[in-house]
Amino acid sequence: MSSEDAGFSVALEEARQGSREGGVPIGAVLVSAEGKLLGQGHNMRIQKGSATLHAEISALENAGRLPASTYRGATMYTTLSPCDMCTGACVMYRVSRVVIGENKTFVGGEEYLKSRGIEVIVLQNKECQELMAKFIKEKPEDWYEDIGEEDE
Amino acid sequence: MSSEDAGFSVALEEARQGSREGGVPIGAVLVSAEGKLLGQGHNMRIQKGSATLHAEISALENAGRLPASTYRGATMYTTLSPCDMCTGACVMYRVSRVVIGENKTFVGGEEYLKSRGIEVIVLQNKECQELMAKFIKEKPEDWYEDIGEEDE
Repeated sequence: MSSEDAGFSVALEEARQGSREGGVPIGAVLVSAEGKLLGQGHNMRIQKGSATLHAEISALENAGRLPASTYRGATMYTTLSPCDMCTGACVMYRVSRVVIGENKTFVGGEEYLKSRGIEVIVLQNKECQELMAKFIKEKPEDWYEDIGEEDE
Repeated sequence: MSSEDAGFSVALEEARQGSREGGVPIGAVLVSAEGKLLGQGHNMRIQKGSATLHAEISALENAGRLPASTYRGATMYTTLSPCDMCTGACVMYRVSRVVIGENKTFVGGEEYLKSRGIEVIVLQNKECQELMAKFIKEKPEDWYEDIGEEDE
């Protein structure tokens, strides 16, 4: 598993698209056990005024209604360590693996994912970190709102 | 705290509305520390073909973008014990309390909520149970899909 992985490349392009739109630059993609792209998306807090469309929720939502069996063996790729809500979404649908672009900016529910039997891989991709660093420097209040934290 | 609580009444009416629409009959409402209704909604899996608009996510989404401080002291009312995704959403936004209509049909992340310092109250309301029993009898496959479980 490396930053050249196809699923991760799609998630990273979603993060770049979020950045181009002036949004929180986090992307995600859900890939089935057979390697089929089921859904992709990026954080829509700013673009849609959304409190729940984090990247992972967007990817799950864009994947549409699926039978439970489709999530088994699936991988959620996300460019940033998933918050508690997105962690819970991965647990509820029982995806098998979460591949994370980086966790230097923020550490979410990685330990909880592992405790629920989900494999966690962190790539520490430099571009993911740079996208977040630029965004947080420019719009700190939007970032803290996105993770439910009060601005420091 | 009883079934006559104003916040719970709104959540129950949302569940009834979901039932009238032929959807998963679960409702939720977010009420601030000061008692202000911030957002309300019901499960939209069937109505919108949505994989993420559980009742609690709908209520948070309909509340719109809010500063982190607004969630502090808030109560999430939901007619059914929250799944892992909705549990995580309550944890991420650090609401103070989750009031649950019933947990006979399904037990979600109640223990995890408590472990993260969130108060949990279960009302065991009969109408909430009846709405779910009727739905699961009529559309079992939709219910199991909604909680990411394979039909038995």
